[in-house]
Amino acid sequence: MRKTGIDKIPGRFMLTLAKPNEDNMLPAVNLKPPFNITRFSHVVLEVNDVGCSRDFYVNVGGLVETEFTDGVSYLRGLSEACHHSLVLAPAGDKPACRRIGYRVFLEEDLDKAKAFFEEKGLPAEWVEVRNQGRTLLVSDPSGARIELCSSMSVHPRKFLAVHEHRGARAQGLDHCQIMVADPLGLSAFYGELGFRTSEYIAAGDTLIANFMYRKGVCLDLALVPGIGPQLHHFAYTVPESSDIFAVCDFASRYGYGDSIERGPGRHGPSGVLFVYLRDPDGHRVEFFNNHYTTIDAELEPIRWDAASLSTNVHWGMPAVSKWFFEASEFAGVPLEHPEKMPNPMTLERYAEGLAKS
Amino acid sequence: MRKTGIDKIPGRFMLTLAKPNEDNMLPAVNLKPPFNITRFSHVVLEVNDVGCSRDFYVNVGGLVETEFTDGVSYLRGLSEACHHSLVLAPAGDKPACRRIGYRVFLEEDLDKAKAFFEEKGLPAEWVEVRNQGRTLLVSDPSGARIELCSSMSVHPRKFLAVHEHRGARAQGLDHCQIMVADPLGLSAFYGELGFRTSEYIAAGDTLIANFMYRKGVCLDLALVPGIGPQLHHFAYTVPESSDIFAVCDFASRYGYGDSIERGPGRHGPSGVLFVYLRDPDGHRVEFFNNHYTTIDAELEPIRWDAASLSTNVHWGMPAVSKWFFEASEFAGVPLEHPEKMPNPMTLERYAEGLAKS
Amino acid sequence: MRKTGIDKIPGRFMLTLAKPNEDNMLPAVNLKPPFNITRFSHVVLEVNDVGCSRDFYVNVGGLVETEFTDGVSYLRGLSEACHHSLVLAPAGDKPACRRIGYRVFLEEDLDKAKAFFEEKGLPAEWVEVRNQGRTLLVSDPSGARIELCSSMSVHPRKFLAVHEHRGARAQGLDHCQIMVADPLGLSAFYGELGFRTSEYIAAGDTLIANFMYRKGVCLDLALVPGIGPQLHHFAYTVPESSDIFAVCDFASRYGYGDSIERGPGRHGPSGVLFVYLRDPDGHRVEFFNNHYTTIDAELEPIRWDAASLSTNVHWGMPAVSKWFFEASEFAGVPLEHPEKMPNPMTLERYAEGLAKS
Amino acid sequence: MRKTGIDKIPGRFMLTLAKPNEDNMLPAVNLKPPFNITRFSHVVLEVNDVGCSRDFYVNVGGLVETEFTDGVSYLRGLSEACHHSLVLAPAGDKPACRRIGYRVFLEEDLDKAKAFFEEKGLPAEWVEVRNQGRTLLVSDPSGARIELCSSMSVHPRKFLAVHEHRGARAQGLDHCQIMVADPLGLSAFYGELGFRTSEYIAAGDTLIANFMYRKGVCLDLALVPGIGPQLHHFAYTVPESSDIFAVCDFASRYGYGDSIERGPGRHGPSGVLFVYLRDPDGHRVEFFNNHYTTIDAELEPIRWDAASLSTNVHWGMPAVSKWFFEASEFAGVPLEHPEKMPNPMTLERYAEGLAKS
Repeated sequence: MRKTGIDKIPGRFMLTLAKPNEDNMLPAVNLKPPFNITRFSHVVLEVNDVGCSRDFYVNVGGLVETEFTDGVSYLRGLSEACHHSLVLAPAGDKPACRRIGYRVFLEEDLDKAKAFFEEKGLPAEWVEVRNQGRTLLVSDPSGARIELCSSMSVHPRKFLAVHEHRGARAQGLDHCQIMVADPLGLSAFYGELGFRTSEYIAAGDTLIANFMYRKGVCLDLALVPGIGPQLHHFAYTVPESSDIFAVCDFASRYGYGDSIERGPGRHGPSGVLFVYLRDPDGHRVEFFNNHYTTIDAELEPIRWDAASLSTNVHWGMPAVSKWFFEASEFAGVPLEHPEKMPNPMTLERYAEGLAKS
Repeated sequence: MRKTGIDKIPGRFMLTLAKPNEDNMLPAVNLKPPFNITRFSHVVLEVNDVGCSRDFYVNVGGLVETEFTDGVSYLRGLSEACHHSLVLAPAGDKPACRRIGYRVFLEEDLDKAKAFFEEKGLPAEWVEVRNQGRTLLVSDPSGARIELCSSMSVHPRKFLAVHEHRGARAQGLDHCQIMVADPLGLSAFYGELGFRTSEYIAAGDTLIANFMYRKGVCLDLALVPGIGPQLHHFAYTVPESSDIFAVCDFASRYGYGDSIERGPGRHGPSGVLFVYLRDPDGHRVEFFNNHYTTIDAELEPIRWDAASLSTNVHWGMPAVSKWFFEASEFAGVPLEHPEKMPNPMTLERYAEGLAKS
Repeated sequence: MRKTGIDKIPGRFMLTLAKPNEDNMLPAVNLKPPFNITRFSHVVLEVNDVGCSRDFYVNVGGLVETEFTDGVSYLRGLSEACHHSLVLAPAGDKPACRRIGYRVFLEEDLDKAKAFFEEKGLPAEWVEVRNQGRTLLVSDPSGARIELCSSMSVHPRKFLAVHEHRGARAQGLDHCQIMVADPLGLSAFYGELGFRTSEYIAAGDTLIANFMYRKGVCLDLALVPGIGPQLHHFAYTVPESSDIFAVCDFASRYGYGDSIERGPGRHGPSGVLFVYLRDPDGHRVEFFNNHYTTIDAELEPIRWDAASLSTNVHWGMPAVSKWFFEASEFAGVPLEHPEKMPNPMTLERYAEGLAKS
Repeated sequence: MRKTGIDKIPGRFMLTLAKPNEDNMLPAVNLKPPFNITRFSHVVLEVNDVGCSRDFYVNVGGLVETEFTDGVSYLRGLSEACHHSLVLAPAGDKPACRRIGYRVFLEEDLDKAKAFFEEKGLPAEWVEVRNQGRTLLVSDPSGARIELCSSMSVHPRKFLAVHEHRGARAQGLDHCQIMVADPLGLSAFYGELGFRTSEYIAAGDTLIANFMYRKGVCLDLALVPGIGPQLHHFAYTVPESSDIFAVCDFASRYGYGDSIERGPGRHGPSGVLFVYLRDPDGHRVEFFNNHYTTIDAELEPIRWDAASLSTNVHWGMPAVSKWFFEASEFAGVPLEHPEKMPNPMTLERYAEGLAKS
């Protein structure tokens, strides 16, 4: 029954590290951007049942609720001092991502941002947002809805309040991944805003994933190709590698075992351990452990070669099809199709190959 | 693109915990067995390239080599004082499991064992085995080849020699899983030898897996149905849950990323974190973290209900087909087919269902 | 200001590993004892405020309460199926250890035990104990009060009920350490009952600590010299090394930061990570991570040489004086002084030496 | 023997968290500094035996050597891409700290820095430094010798090269602590350079420790009072809390068990787990786990009240006297005494109190 040797997992969904100093296909980055975005800040989700979603993020992820008011839940990670990094609001006709948020360093950066977006002919308007300082609501060229603000109310960090800890002890929001029709074009826009690339995946001249950052570690914003703009996922850090298992165990205990969509595994780009879950409305959240620092200006983007989107380099099976194709629309924002739809190696195709072999 | 809600993983490969005190379908256990087997002790594998296999177990698993002599490698885990728990010997025409080994408490137990096996009409002969005390070679009713001995030479435990540690820091051999044509019949044989059941899986009256022990934790010997006798896998403990990831990361670094066959995941029965690898010859090894204790005589077997073999309860996808059907033959031992071949939910079938949904 | 080089910590409180096969000073062990004690089972403490003590063990240690009845709290570890491993009962005039408990394998072992103790002229009487099967109350030659039983009621193990976990997630009771006037004499008694020694500490012919076991890992009963019989400490396992820090962090959060008496550190004998706390009445509890297995009969005791009691081998400072001299009396049992009081290197003496250097 | 209740550790060395929004005693911070220091970058130590020191940092800490040339060892942490974060060079007459280094963002920041230091009448000269871009050597007002540069050669990060990992797997240099005669005065200087304070310790109007940062987590530079300028310690991050124990275990195995000067413990300010070692020349290095992020401009410094320097809040004993008073001089830089020498609670004084109680 046993064969001598083992079947090779088909290599075609595995990434290959490009040679250093190979030509960088990415657009230029402005190291002196017109205003100072400091980090990815928050996500506002529209959900069918705020209480149910809140319980998911609190019990499984370990977020704490800073405030619940007017039917809206404001959550933050255990080491966050800001008022919220995740906002859960009642959905209209269907769940969606309402907005994502970035921080700028000083309030004056908001005025510079407004001028910048207006000059580009992009939407930019002042909005009142509870528990945030002056807030500018803009759209990027893909149509993604984005809040910019320079301050929130400050609250005690909870990472040592061990008696209040739950679930995977999520520490802080780290990044989001956005699916857009033209990631290369959008990369140029974010490069102009000072977003640098830590690592990226490409197939020849086609950009398959661009991992960009402002805050001095690998990632604030990942861009991948697809029908967009859509929020593919947002991600929280967990403190220890054992917490990746805690995500799964708490998910299971609270009835969300089936919501573990991908992982546990280890990404090639950035090299972190990860697990992806779908929340009660199908919004996707990633939990992962720590990113390396990327502060120094002499660092060049690391390129990975791949036939299609995957982050597997070291070990692990392909993601299921829906990980590649399902994401959260931005409420009220029309969708655009890419010139060519991605055709990734999915678990379904991989297993079909196994069955035939 | 995003659907409201998430697709449910088909529940049919998930186990269900039976109600306590439900009728125990298992054969009787003799609490005063004719001789005292204390624990599962060692595995002797025949491999194509002893050096290559040794490197696999040393670099990925973290075993230490006690001795290499006459082309045979004797390995042990970091907290083991015995001379060997894994022996790698050159294969004849093809890789196989030569023998597995159990310890008996006192040398006199060997004589009692010889009488017992002879009375049953089962093979039992004295053999000379390097680095073991007096050794009895027997066959159980399935034909599995088994060494019994009461002593080995003793060596310093290495679990604090941190500067010598490698790979997943495997601590000690824990158990094996044997695939046999009639696991229920064989359970009666081992029950007579004092093997108790910690947990088992059944479909109605059909025994799907029987997790048996002598040593005071969950498991020494697991019996599952299939073409047998074959060694399905043997298992080493690792000290921390992060070491489950270390298995994968070291496997990847040493070129064995594709050898990770199943996991990381968490078993339902016994509740441990696990990962399975295929070694360079396809022999299967499991690394897992700690088992609970099962010393007390009042403990009853825990029953799980399942349509077919699986150990998924909490989270995770089905195992690939080969995990269910491929195993290591015992060298020179004829194979017997079960009355009815198992028909488990495999990853391939699961993914086919996903693709159609 | 900085000196070249560093001050050496005086080596005199550090243990030295004896050469293997050096003459074993310990009394003989009976490998076929008159009855079968399988493991250390439980501790019954008399405390000033049962609710307060229960909260300590639940919130800091992570034990779960199986039952609270008649003012008595019955607690067990997360991976224990037995009804209780720690019983907290209201104290009479002052806190004390009421009894400690061992399990025997079969009920018939209790009868054999009664005969054995009676033959030795030691107290042995049947007692009714809630949630235990037939129970024999005996005294060992030091006067320590001991319950023997073969069964308890069985309850679901909680180690995967992660949503109920608290504190250091203590898994199970492992061992106790008893202070007695004549540990060498008492070692002979326990050797007759089949207690083997995994490791011991000696100064020439003087036995300083004897680590004895029945259950197949390092330790069930440690004997150390001093005014006795007194319960020096009992110990629970924790699942991961990070839980040693969790003990401290939870202790701090619940107002018991000052109750951390010794550690975190690593023992020489057994090699485990440990931390000791004093509970609200001053009873001492240790939390430590996993022990190696000691099942095989050919294993010889490992000897450590030391001038006085210490378990420091690898790193760490001496314990404070009270760790050496304070312990819990057995309620109603007279104390006996050793011929010569121990004179260990304490933190106080060590720091005095530092101050003078 | 056992007392009812437990002795309280004298509270006077424990920190107290001040009320939020209490008056901030710290000098102003310039959020638009004259040039952009991005992070603490490297330490250059003069040592008696470069090979011996290198082995210490490689085997115990887990640093990797990027280059060894002309008798100088250049080391970096596992997740660092820069050429070096620790440089070990042969000492002249005695070991010392030669220089510490900061990164600026762009090369033009170096010119701005030169102008700034010259305007202040502080030393500033261009120097050639191997494997660094253009480098400016300056002195701060305390006399500390500091290199500023904007680039180094880039090397592969090693955090996933698990087969090359050793010791505590130090990931990256994080911060240094400098002992100076007037920490409050020097805080004003660094505030002008944009260093913000995450947390600080004060006794009334006396600044006892100021934890300052540029890089978006808690700390780049800590200032404490004493004879200065001296390098009190520099600190590397480790990836998991278990690695704090790994530091100790590897130190012990390589003969540096006595070099563990303080810890393992948990700091009050920043809340991290830590351990301090003295290297073969007595230079002090800290290993600790992860810092929280401090990017947002609205964050106010957190104040702790204490009679004297300590970082104990949660649990743990006072540090030994030499931790408070011994440090590494800057080579060739004269020392200045503070107006009033600190009088901290040391382990020696604490133990003296215990002995008398």
